[in-house]
Amino acid sequence: MRIVIIGGVAGGASAAARARRLSESAEIVILERGPDVSFANCGLPYYVGGEIAEREKLLVATPQFLRRRLNLDVRTGSQVDAIDRAAKRVQVRELATGRTYEEAYDKLILATGAAPLRPPIPGLDLPGIYTLRNMQDADRLKASVDAGVREALVVGAGFIGLEMVENLVRRGIRTTVVELQDQVLPPLDKEMTTPLAEHLAQHGVELLLGESAEAFEPAPEGLAVRLKSGRRLTAQLVSLGIGVRPESQLATAAGLDVGPRGGIRVNASMQTSDPNIYAVGDVIEVQDVVTNLPTQVPLAGPANRQGRLAADHIFGNPAQYRGTQGTAIVKVFDRTAAMSGASEKTLRRLGQTFRKVYIHPAHHAGYYPGAEAMSLKLLFAPETGRILGAQAVGGAGVDKRIDVLAVAIQAGMTVFDIEEMELAYSPQYGSAKDPVNMAGFVAAGLLRGEHPQADVETILALPEDERPLLLDVRTPAEHAAGAIPGSLNIPIDELRANLSRLPQNRPIASYCQVGMRGYLATRILLQSGFSAVNLGGGYKTYRLHFPR
Amino acid sequence: MRIVIIGGVAGGASAAARARRLSESAEIVILERGPDVSFANCGLPYYVGGEIAEREKLLVATPQFLRRRLNLDVRTGSQVDAIDRAAKRVQVRELATGRTYEEAYDKLILATGAAPLRPPIPGLDLPGIYTLRNMQDADRLKASVDAGVREALVVGAGFIGLEMVENLVRRGIRTTVVELQDQVLPPLDKEMTTPLAEHLAQHGVELLLGESAEAFEPAPEGLAVRLKSGRRLTAQLVSLGIGVRPESQLATAAGLDVGPRGGIRVNASMQTSDPNIYAVGDVIEVQDVVTNLPTQVPLAGPANRQGRLAADHIFGNPAQYRGTQGTAIVKVFDRTAAMSGASEKTLRRLGQTFRKVYIHPAHHAGYYPGAEAMSLKLLFAPETGRILGAQAVGGAGVDKRIDVLAVAIQAGMTVFDIEEMELAYSPQYGSAKDPVNMAGFVAAGLLRGEHPQADVETILALPEDERPLLLDVRTPAEHAAGAIPGSLNIPIDELRANLSRLPQNRPIASYCQVGMRGYLATRILLQSGFSAVNLGGGYKTYRLHFPR
Repeated sequence: MRIVIIGGVAGGASAAARARRLSESAEIVILERGPDVSFANCGLPYYVGGEIAEREKLLVATPQFLRRRLNLDVRTGSQVDAIDRAAKRVQVRELATGRTYEEAYDKLILATGAAPLRPPIPGLDLPGIYTLRNMQDADRLKASVDAGVREALVVGAGFIGLEMVENLVRRGIRTTVVELQDQVLPPLDKEMTTPLAEHLAQHGVELLLGESAEAFEPAPEGLAVRLKSGRRLTAQLVSLGIGVRPESQLATAAGLDVGPRGGIRVNASMQTSDPNIYAVGDVIEVQDVVTNLPTQVPLAGPANRQGRLAADHIFGNPAQYRGTQGTAIVKVFDRTAAMSGASEKTLRRLGQTFRKVYIHPAHHAGYYPGAEAMSLKLLFAPETGRILGAQAVGGAGVDKRIDVLAVAIQAGMTVFDIEEMELAYSPQYGSAKDPVNMAGFVAAGLLRGEHPQADVETILALPEDERPLLLDVRTPAEHAAGAIPGSLNIPIDELRANLSRLPQNRPIASYCQVGMRGYLATRILLQSGFSAVNLGGGYKTYRLHFPR
Repeated sequence: MRIVIIGGVAGGASAAARARRLSESAEIVILERGPDVSFANCGLPYYVGGEIAEREKLLVATPQFLRRRLNLDVRTGSQVDAIDRAAKRVQVRELATGRTYEEAYDKLILATGAAPLRPPIPGLDLPGIYTLRNMQDADRLKASVDAGVREALVVGAGFIGLEMVENLVRRGIRTTVVELQDQVLPPLDKEMTTPLAEHLAQHGVELLLGESAEAFEPAPEGLAVRLKSGRRLTAQLVSLGIGVRPESQLATAAGLDVGPRGGIRVNASMQTSDPNIYAVGDVIEVQDVVTNLPTQVPLAGPANRQGRLAADHIFGNPAQYRGTQGTAIVKVFDRTAAMSGASEKTLRRLGQTFRKVYIHPAHHAGYYPGAEAMSLKLLFAPETGRILGAQAVGGAGVDKRIDVLAVAIQAGMTVFDIEEMELAYSPQYGSAKDPVNMAGFVAAGLLRGEHPQADVETILALPEDERPLLLDVRTPAEHAAGAIPGSLNIPIDELRANLSRLPQNRPIASYCQVGMRGYLATRILLQSGFSAVNLGGGYKTYRLHFPR
């Protein structure tokens, strides 16, 4: 068995290692265009920022190591120019010498990854403008920063863009971010990114949303950048991170099936339309486990998993990729944002019915020092309660809750199941009613009809004379510190004694800070004959939708 | 509807709050013997130790608050002496005045909790010997510590015992622990507690295992303690925490069904053998979700959940308790230990078949600063791969992995499912192959037969001449720093070239540091015609079983 793997980073290296474990006798050749294999892409921004001080730490496995440990034939600096499917050969070019040769395969694995998008902006090739994909990119960026940069512009506020922002600021650089969409982290729903936008501002980052770079020009201070709005910026460094496109040209040229966005189509065993050719990682199209639609999700975890599965299938092991659910996480200074499954905007775009709840719990018991706040959004199917997606933003413990909910999504669990989850509780780690349980209580109560709830953005989108009475059941001090405009304040503990002040013929939408008192108020009002709903997630959710 | 609840802490308070939300008109009476309701038992050790500085923080909800917010009739200092099931009345005694009266109920909820075990040891009632169950206990303990204690003895190294140890040491007290069993944290398997025992020693704690207190006597230095071994200790403070027994005397006297260990028997709707009487929390017997056997699990999370369910059932909502899986966690200085599901010793005791794997991963990507070590043990069914139990000990991230695996146990997932889990990865939070995935790879590989594995404690229990050849595939430096006695060292990278040094007619058990290189070695040996197994979890697992 002769296996040729094109690309030696996440998916390719995983396939090679798995293949060797399954077969000592297989010939396994890795053809890698760059000088490195198996490096830690996800660490690159932190190398630029100095948080990871030693370059070698990023080289998870060197070519020498893979040869020695796994008896792999690793050839770096080796670009594949064409695939001859009929002859089962690839044409290889040694970049250093220009020499070309053919290499035969029994099975071929394409792990060519994805390349940063480079939009057709004038001046994009000027010095000082960088993308970040590999060690060489990181070296160039770091050298530029080390040489002294006062002002940087980050184009694109996605996951890697925000990691670059944090690292540039850590290096003392005044940093501006432009993002074409009206929010940071476009995979998340906009309101869930409000705390991140506020946090970026607290760290002195200027965030320009709905904005893009239209031209770059050389300038005495480095680069002059013209934005869509007409505004001009100067920067000595521009980091471009507006997304990636699959590097599927080889596959296309070889006539393999490729999806509309360029991802190579594969079956559940990672086989392309040619059963002797597999494809794994950022270069492929995957199925979304929640929406069941094809999508492209450039994430390291799925890439590694796919590499393993391709090797398994080559050696006759059962191998079924279950799809990708897009679990992702990012640290932005002292905040964490994470998600798994479908977002509200995706569900809306697909016309899929859903319900949602927001909660704003502390990450562990409030009576123990150091509890940090988070906001958690749960999306679920109205008929079955099946969990469709989860997003969280906050401090410590965000990662844990999204992982727990990622497993719930994988298992097809419902909001009724997460009410019952028995999670580890002592006051340093959680609460007797964990945030995940709380989300389950609220969501399940909603579906059981105990807890009619309205979304604050829907209510406020109504003309004023069609809105329900907004009833703030917080304390007068909380009300005075900030309330939804036009709301009446009756604290929850005085509500039972003040029901006569409320209209019998107008719906009431009660709210509090996070939703708990509003829920109780709703229960009191409903049982007293009023028409009432709770504004889910309370004033904190209002503030996510309508920042100050 | 008139609901009387006996006991106003976790389960009782949850039942009351839920009942009020379901019905504004119900009369809800809480009869609580002590002066407090709804206090944070799990915070008490940290109040003694000063980590929680303000006493009020522990009073999650005061009687006044519950009256005002939830219109509950809360009567503290009120002991119930008897239940008249025929008349549906309880007899109440006001502890302050001695006055007794009867209180009628439609539905009665028993939430009387569990009391610390007090073994018949001479001198146990001497001043300076404390148990820790409620605020008053914590006040007494704290006053004693504040008054100046040089030496303390903690009897019982369970969860609360170890929390007390940490807090006494924090107060500068020389602390000794005696534990009757041969390990700390008896719910965990012994080898998984090795890192905790070592960590306690690092913090100057003397740990006496297989030991117990036999007598206490007054002494000039406070208390003289005689141990089973004959050794004598002095201490100014003794903290007793050897377990709890359900406070089910009321139920027994009323003729309700009670299990052999004193837990009140309830159905899945939390009803006792009298359908008008419910019981919740530490006082009941529950079903273990893994073993399906009755058990008693005094944990706050399940108690709260049961309280909610009892109220749900009273008001006609569907309510099915799914059983308890015993998810528990404890912080001991800078270490965390946690578990969910069945332990190996429980499975052995029940004669249930199982397989197990150990891994020793870092809690996040090793290339990012601050990765902390953990050891993770996974127990699963040999036929189906269903996860039966998980235990972990280490630093950061232990809580997350046990929560993820707790959900997997709840969902009935297998080791094949956890291979596929898509968990949140960026270098601060995890790895592209998360520890949970890694445990899945090892366990699933074992069941697929790719990866024959032996348990080191089983191998070393064999007579020397029946043992396989122990092959250490680590580097010479690692081997020299500590190895399993009698093992041959051939580093993995030299193994392929040195196969001729190995015996064809003797089984080989290879091992490395954590199991990865040993796995590769096993694959190389098997495919080269040797009889080979991997010692699962490598030298680190050996050291858990055989501490230095």
